[in-house]
Amino acid sequence: MSFAKKEYDFLKEIGLGPHNLGCYVNGAWKGSGPIVSSVNPANNQAIAEVSEASTQDYEEGMQACFEAAKTWVQIPAPRRGEIVRKIGDALRAELQHLGRLVSLEMGKILAEGIGEVQEIIDMCDFAVGLSRQLNGSVIPSERPNHMMLEMWNPLGIVGVITAFNFPCAVLGWNACIALVCGNCVVWKGAPTTPLITIAMTRIVAGVLEKNNLPGAIFTSFCGGAEIGQAIAKDTRIPLVSFTGSSKVGLMVQNTVNERFGKCLLELSGNNAIIVMDDADIQLAVRSVLFAAVGTAGQRCTTCRRLLLHESIYQKVLDQLLEVYKQVKIGDPLQKGTLLGPLHTRAARENFEKGIEGGKILTGGSVIESEGNFVQPTIIEISPNADVVKEELFAPVLYVLKFQTLKEAIEINNSVPQGLSSSIFSRKPEVIFKWIGPQGSDCGIVNVNIPTNGAEIGGAFGGEKATGGGREAGSDSWKQYMRRSTCTINYGNELPLAQGINFG
Amino acid sequence: MSFAKKEYDFLKEIGLGPHNLGCYVNGAWKGSGPIVSSVNPANNQAIAEVSEASTQDYEEGMQACFEAAKTWVQIPAPRRGEIVRKIGDALRAELQHLGRLVSLEMGKILAEGIGEVQEIIDMCDFAVGLSRQLNGSVIPSERPNHMMLEMWNPLGIVGVITAFNFPCAVLGWNACIALVCGNCVVWKGAPTTPLITIAMTRIVAGVLEKNNLPGAIFTSFCGGAEIGQAIAKDTRIPLVSFTGSSKVGLMVQNTVNERFGKCLLELSGNNAIIVMDDADIQLAVRSVLFAAVGTAGQRCTTCRRLLLHESIYQKVLDQLLEVYKQVKIGDPLQKGTLLGPLHTRAARENFEKGIEGGKILTGGSVIESEGNFVQPTIIEISPNADVVKEELFAPVLYVLKFQTLKEAIEINNSVPQGLSSSIFSRKPEVIFKWIGPQGSDCGIVNVNIPTNGAEIGGAFGGEKATGGGREAGSDSWKQYMRRSTCTINYGNELPLAQGINFG
Amino acid sequence: MSFAKKEYDFLKEIGLGPHNLGCYVNGAWKGSGPIVSSVNPANNQAIAEVSEASTQDYEEGMQACFEAAKTWVQIPAPRRGEIVRKIGDALRAELQHLGRLVSLEMGKILAEGIGEVQEIIDMCDFAVGLSRQLNGSVIPSERPNHMMLEMWNPLGIVGVITAFNFPCAVLGWNACIALVCGNCVVWKGAPTTPLITIAMTRIVAGVLEKNNLPGAIFTSFCGGAEIGQAIAKDTRIPLVSFTGSSKVGLMVQNTVNERFGKCLLELSGNNAIIVMDDADIQLAVRSVLFAAVGTAGQRCTTCRRLLLHESIYQKVLDQLLEVYKQVKIGDPLQKGTLLGPLHTRAARENFEKGIEGGKILTGGSVIESEGNFVQPTIIEISPNADVVKEELFAPVLYVLKFQTLKEAIEINNSVPQGLSSSIFSRKPEVIFKWIGPQGSDCGIVNVNIPTNGAEIGGAFGGEKATGGGREAGSDSWKQYMRRSTCTINYGNELPLAQGINFG
Amino acid sequence: MSFAKKEYDFLKEIGLGPHNLGCYVNGAWKGSGPIVSSVNPANNQAIAEVSEASTQDYEEGMQACFEAAKTWVQIPAPRRGEIVRKIGDALRAELQHLGRLVSLEMGKILAEGIGEVQEIIDMCDFAVGLSRQLNGSVIPSERPNHMMLEMWNPLGIVGVITAFNFPCAVLGWNACIALVCGNCVVWKGAPTTPLITIAMTRIVAGVLEKNNLPGAIFTSFCGGAEIGQAIAKDTRIPLVSFTGSSKVGLMVQNTVNERFGKCLLELSGNNAIIVMDDADIQLAVRSVLFAAVGTAGQRCTTCRRLLLHESIYQKVLDQLLEVYKQVKIGDPLQKGTLLGPLHTRAARENFEKGIEGGKILTGGSVIESEGNFVQPTIIEISPNADVVKEELFAPVLYVLKFQTLKEAIEINNSVPQGLSSSIFSRKPEVIFKWIGPQGSDCGIVNVNIPTNGAEIGGAFGGEKATGGGREAGSDSWKQYMRRSTCTINYGNELPLAQGINFG
Repeated sequence: MSFAKKEYDFLKEIGLGPHNLGCYVNGAWKGSGPIVSSVNPANNQAIAEVSEASTQDYEEGMQACFEAAKTWVQIPAPRRGEIVRKIGDALRAELQHLGRLVSLEMGKILAEGIGEVQEIIDMCDFAVGLSRQLNGSVIPSERPNHMMLEMWNPLGIVGVITAFNFPCAVLGWNACIALVCGNCVVWKGAPTTPLITIAMTRIVAGVLEKNNLPGAIFTSFCGGAEIGQAIAKDTRIPLVSFTGSSKVGLMVQNTVNERFGKCLLELSGNNAIIVMDDADIQLAVRSVLFAAVGTAGQRCTTCRRLLLHESIYQKVLDQLLEVYKQVKIGDPLQKGTLLGPLHTRAARENFEKGIEGGKILTGGSVIESEGNFVQPTIIEISPNADVVKEELFAPVLYVLKFQTLKEAIEINNSVPQGLSSSIFSRKPEVIFKWIGPQGSDCGIVNVNIPTNGAEIGGAFGGEKATGGGREAGSDSWKQYMRRSTCTINYGNELPLAQGINFG
Repeated sequence: MSFAKKEYDFLKEIGLGPHNLGCYVNGAWKGSGPIVSSVNPANNQAIAEVSEASTQDYEEGMQACFEAAKTWVQIPAPRRGEIVRKIGDALRAELQHLGRLVSLEMGKILAEGIGEVQEIIDMCDFAVGLSRQLNGSVIPSERPNHMMLEMWNPLGIVGVITAFNFPCAVLGWNACIALVCGNCVVWKGAPTTPLITIAMTRIVAGVLEKNNLPGAIFTSFCGGAEIGQAIAKDTRIPLVSFTGSSKVGLMVQNTVNERFGKCLLELSGNNAIIVMDDADIQLAVRSVLFAAVGTAGQRCTTCRRLLLHESIYQKVLDQLLEVYKQVKIGDPLQKGTLLGPLHTRAARENFEKGIEGGKILTGGSVIESEGNFVQPTIIEISPNADVVKEELFAPVLYVLKFQTLKEAIEINNSVPQGLSSSIFSRKPEVIFKWIGPQGSDCGIVNVNIPTNGAEIGGAFGGEKATGGGREAGSDSWKQYMRRSTCTINYGNELPLAQGINFG
Repeated sequence: MSFAKKEYDFLKEIGLGPHNLGCYVNGAWKGSGPIVSSVNPANNQAIAEVSEASTQDYEEGMQACFEAAKTWVQIPAPRRGEIVRKIGDALRAELQHLGRLVSLEMGKILAEGIGEVQEIIDMCDFAVGLSRQLNGSVIPSERPNHMMLEMWNPLGIVGVITAFNFPCAVLGWNACIALVCGNCVVWKGAPTTPLITIAMTRIVAGVLEKNNLPGAIFTSFCGGAEIGQAIAKDTRIPLVSFTGSSKVGLMVQNTVNERFGKCLLELSGNNAIIVMDDADIQLAVRSVLFAAVGTAGQRCTTCRRLLLHESIYQKVLDQLLEVYKQVKIGDPLQKGTLLGPLHTRAARENFEKGIEGGKILTGGSVIESEGNFVQPTIIEISPNADVVKEELFAPVLYVLKFQTLKEAIEINNSVPQGLSSSIFSRKPEVIFKWIGPQGSDCGIVNVNIPTNGAEIGGAFGGEKATGGGREAGSDSWKQYMRRSTCTINYGNELPLAQGINFG
Repeated sequence: MSFAKKEYDFLKEIGLGPHNLGCYVNGAWKGSGPIVSSVNPANNQAIAEVSEASTQDYEEGMQACFEAAKTWVQIPAPRRGEIVRKIGDALRAELQHLGRLVSLEMGKILAEGIGEVQEIIDMCDFAVGLSRQLNGSVIPSERPNHMMLEMWNPLGIVGVITAFNFPCAVLGWNACIALVCGNCVVWKGAPTTPLITIAMTRIVAGVLEKNNLPGAIFTSFCGGAEIGQAIAKDTRIPLVSFTGSSKVGLMVQNTVNERFGKCLLELSGNNAIIVMDDADIQLAVRSVLFAAVGTAGQRCTTCRRLLLHESIYQKVLDQLLEVYKQVKIGDPLQKGTLLGPLHTRAARENFEKGIEGGKILTGGSVIESEGNFVQPTIIEISPNADVVKEELFAPVLYVLKFQTLKEAIEINNSVPQGLSSSIFSRKPEVIFKWIGPQGSDCGIVNVNIPTNGAEIGGAFGGEKATGGGREAGSDSWKQYMRRSTCTINYGNELPLAQGINFG
């Protein structure tokens, strides 16, 4: 059997065919749920079919995973790191194919598709080093012949629910860390990117098999809300890492809390770039272009609000309108394309809602074609307009004017979300105020770079309606482990803390 | 006007009288809500009256606090540390009186009352050091001429809702850290311990005044559920630290999450002590006595379940029954008393429910008197009995028998709560298994000491239904701050992460 | 018996008299070595007499100290912290008197004398917090059933040899940390500031006595090179912390290394301030004044070289010459004085050598008087002149001109010493280059503040001929402890690292 | 031209021939110094010839290295990590050949030869992770509008002088960390293992070339004391990492200190294993065998002293004598061999000196053959015998008897060296005392494993005459960087630390 189009043949190289089983359960592939088609957003035609998970598949997978956790938890962390290193090498070998698939199925341009896979490879390398540094502490005890330790132990199983916009990188952030920390991973990929879910899972599964480890250490499901809810409710999963909208995230959190589980939430962003009067305007304009148009505005770190100081308002706008004209729209796999399609037909409709209520400076229309293309759009609007308070996944940029730094920071902080933010300025007093207690209230606070494009060495995530989780670098790994404060008395006496005498 | 009893006259020394205003709002004392009586649990007679907060008081206090936060956040952390140092010195000067008040109003024995205040003093000293160590990170960037910083900034205001059993220490854990981190504190003490709330607040208020700082930096309310709900709903309070039952904690969490705030939860414990066949039995028996009878079983770290290896089951029980006989019950302020009253009449009733379904080995009765006294009680019961799964705030100990370490750990981990746990053994393979990935799933994992009596240098808190929060030492301070990952481009180029080229 | 001058009577308040025993040995005061006079540098008249240590005193003191170490090492760190807290409180009670004594005997102005004592108090507070945070690590082992710990244990005894310019603060930096780390301290103060040595020791001794601890935990000697050499050679002292010249420091280091001991060296500085073309000139001028004239140029962080960008060269110089004119020279205890005497007659002679070879722009003369006063001096000179490469302890500032940042950094780095350095600029690219890999090679790298006036929260010390040691904050405490990497096998197997099979 | 023996032909695979140039200078191979032969210690016949470095080669290499440092320092750390990752992969591809060469030229058995190369690969993986974690700190400043940073910058060039016993692993420990930290590396391998030096250098050089980086980033010399001294004296090399004897190490240190450079010393060990009365004797015996006989006793962590509790003295000895009998001596490349030759003829003579003064229980003779074989030897001796105080590189074990733990620890600590130590016991009070302040004074303090065989995640090195350096894991990387405490004033005021007013 062969693919509908010859250009999809590269998918065979990474183990995909016209029809695919969408669950990796107990080390075997199956899929007894609904059959769905993966669709190319550039033309809305099917790429291939996938059998999703049924609830039986889920339960079978979870039982195996729960058993596998008993094995995985006992393998020393540096040995687990060696497995993750091999996953990184396997990804490296398939970087081009996987990047191409990301571009094809999600719709982002090829450079970004490859960049996304590269990010997982970087995460693997990082996690390997981490596998010898998941350090606890030896804390001085106030009692003689006592030793106080802070120990970090695995949670057991980490559930990872990811979104279409980063169909594999977010899995990478979570899984690399979760695995070296000693957890099994249960992954539900986005319903509209099942081929990526399967291809990524194949890579991991291959490494597990070659190393004679239970495949159930990495359990993966293509599926929709039903599987997502099953994960949220499952008491065998102490931690659920969820990436998606604030609304759904809150529901997941309530469900998980109800059973006293933990959540790691990466929810909506509504990210502003502030351009001060002294900014390097060329740098700012290039950054805004990448931040607002890149990934067709579908990154959680996409710049949605551009705050311009009144003194350079027109100058920046003029330059921006100029570069917007030159943005090449089209097939994301084609060289030179900067703006691919939106991921779904529905997203096109949201685009149309998102441009209501302001003055369109450029763009503003959907593009009639088979695909989900829209024009890159800039809209002049009041900071108080309703649409400005919400996340819109489209290349729509709201432009606002301000007079003082204080005012700009207030506008930046005035939305419910708190993910990313940037300022362009060359003044230390501005820069340090911006990153300080009275500055941006976001989790990512940049200076002279766009809101998007985070490095893995730092912690990624945001505050307020963005959910408060942190992934990738810094001490994000602590979220994937449970901490215990251990006091060991190795003497023969029983002195009490705070010098209390009892009996 | 004078107190009903002469023995309460010491309260004047710490600013209390027969009638007291229960709110410290914008640097002044008021209280336009209901008037309540503080009751001595040893005789159920009133000690003094308190005017609680009305919702107007609350709103007035919060507005002032919100303004004060703008001042406090700008004071350098080491200067904030100096204020906390002075609070510590002011407490030190009143240690005996405050400890006596804790014993009087809460009902714990005097040594424990003084120990509780000492713990706040220790926390002050710890926080002073911390005020120069709230360190962020400088992280190597993958991009030339870029600097990556992880910054920690204050949240603004921290709400603290505390419970009767540690009517001031829990405030101390939270407030000392919250204050050096740059946050104002809004405190609602337990409804049944208003005098302690007022006395503690007076100490803090005095220091703020002497240092010409807005009193609203520390805003304090006596009050009940209405004030608690107001805190949970208040968007001006990014973090709510709640100590109490799992049931109420879950409600608070839902309310706070709904507005995308954060919670720090210290909820129920259901703590086991495991005694292995090789244990130092004398040490174990003394520990169980302190852990099960201390504070009349009303600590969240109280030992509620005693797991005995079958080979030493009878021996330990015999010794324990022997020491239980000698426990002196009575006025907690009297020298020699080990077991004071339960805090309320209602707690006596819960005691009676909590002893159903098992075989009473000793105790089992309430003591007829004016106060809320009950007998220290040991009950032989199945690990699967319903009462064994729930927290009971009373000196009731369930005794269970086991055969293997694996079985003992399974019983330990089989309850919804995950706060504290202890094992008594002298074998390294037992000790290290117990604190490792397959050991206790609690936040506190002790060896050869009781479940209670934590040192402030470690992180205090627990997993699962205990809520996951961590207070006091280690890096608990991070919960009181917001983290931002800052990337500063100080060059003229715009290299992108993961080596992406865009445009 | 009374003091020669009535104005010295305040010394009685801190336990000093006209004649004083200069050794605190095994908890008692003695001094069987030479009798020396402490001299007031403002008039070169004796303040009081001191009996210095003989080598017998030394040996007696060290034997007691060696015994006391066995006790001190076993006291839990937080308990040691409590002792240091009490030392801080005792100093706080005598702040004014001690500060006055520092000003009188050393010659620095009163504000600086009090500031020096305040710094020890700050260090005590910092060390108290540290006493619960001297954390080791739990490191993941690659072998099953193995636990890897990094433990930090006390060294035993730390020898501290201090210099006249900070006659007590440097002791404070070392002793506060050394004590909480579990070490006894052996102190030899500067030969010319014995009264401060005695007064400081009295404070510490008082606290030890009140807490029933062996006085020998803190052993203190007034004395000269003979006692210094004894410390350097003494195998009972694993760490010698030495503050002084690079020349003597190198000798101490060789002696200590020979016996495989460790050194913590704080040696010469030769510190530059760079003023860029965009600098806030008023800020720069005030900073240079404090850095070059403060403490009469006798701080190790004193600014000795002023590097001015050619475009603002004359402007800065003009303003500087203007403020130099207003510097009030005189009795350091008098209000308004900014420049007191040099510490010794010999220092006056060094001053005269240090001004050879350049063009005197202001000052340049010693002031005829009883005291050791000299004029604050600015000299225009080539960066290659010999005197520019050496540390001079006098208020002499060499002015140099540069054209580019690169050139300025090269001049900054061209001296053998590497202690402190500052730049004045408002450009991020300058600031971040300055603190980066191609910037200043010093241990202290400031921006828009003077070279002197370090905060205790950071690590203090410098590179190259400055000796490489670090005192006060950050992880400086690690130098006062020995580290051990501990691997504990609690299983029954013997797996080897790197997967080696043997036998 | 071909090798003398066909069995050496595998050397061609890793770029070696019968004659080899021994310097990698400015990206090219040369060698204008003396021609030396590499000798197989199993038969004392030449393997191949090497042209060593002349002093001109050295100077040429250092000039190029100094220039290359300017490039390397500017490459972001994670990019440097990527280079180290590729070095690791290149080593992985040649693991078998390189391991075989180590075994052939050094004389250790093949499993250990391969293990040594594996250790470098592990170090590469570790260093890659580290390249994103070389974190500085953001420290709270006590002054408003000030920011305090602790920055870590590269030193520039690190000199590495290694010894024959780990002819490449020690280079790996140093170079992996030094490179990611931003330093160029200058390596002088041991004079008797030049082929390994060349083969390792080829691997690194190949990676640098393929990535278009200056070869001089890694500069390597075969040579003897003359080159070693040149490194020690060279002011272009801020840090010299030296591995070798305490005697030579002290000389290197004096030379480096004289020019105010830094040393990282890994010197002699004299390591004891203590077997307590409750030990698992089988585990202890197997550990002693590996620790005393492995690498023919030529590890710095080799067990040289066996301290047996009197109650199990004879039992342990009997078992040990039994296993010693079974040790297969012979060609280290042959399967089954446990004891290969000593590295040199001279080492055989030292062996004979080292067995004087005690009672030979087994072994004691050199084995007449072409190679440098000796018998594995156990000697009963007094702890005060002179030979017991010195490091001997041979499979000679001194057995001593003790009665109490205290006595055993005193003997353990009674030698000048302080590298490694182990205890065998199952009692927590023994284990925790052993690793605590009154326990072993060594840098490596093991429990129930041998003295040798460290994991890379911990810090490797020792105290006292062992030199105090730390390599590999934990925060050892800090030694390869310079630290600066940076205070940035971004406001317009000039507040001073410690609240001082000046002028």
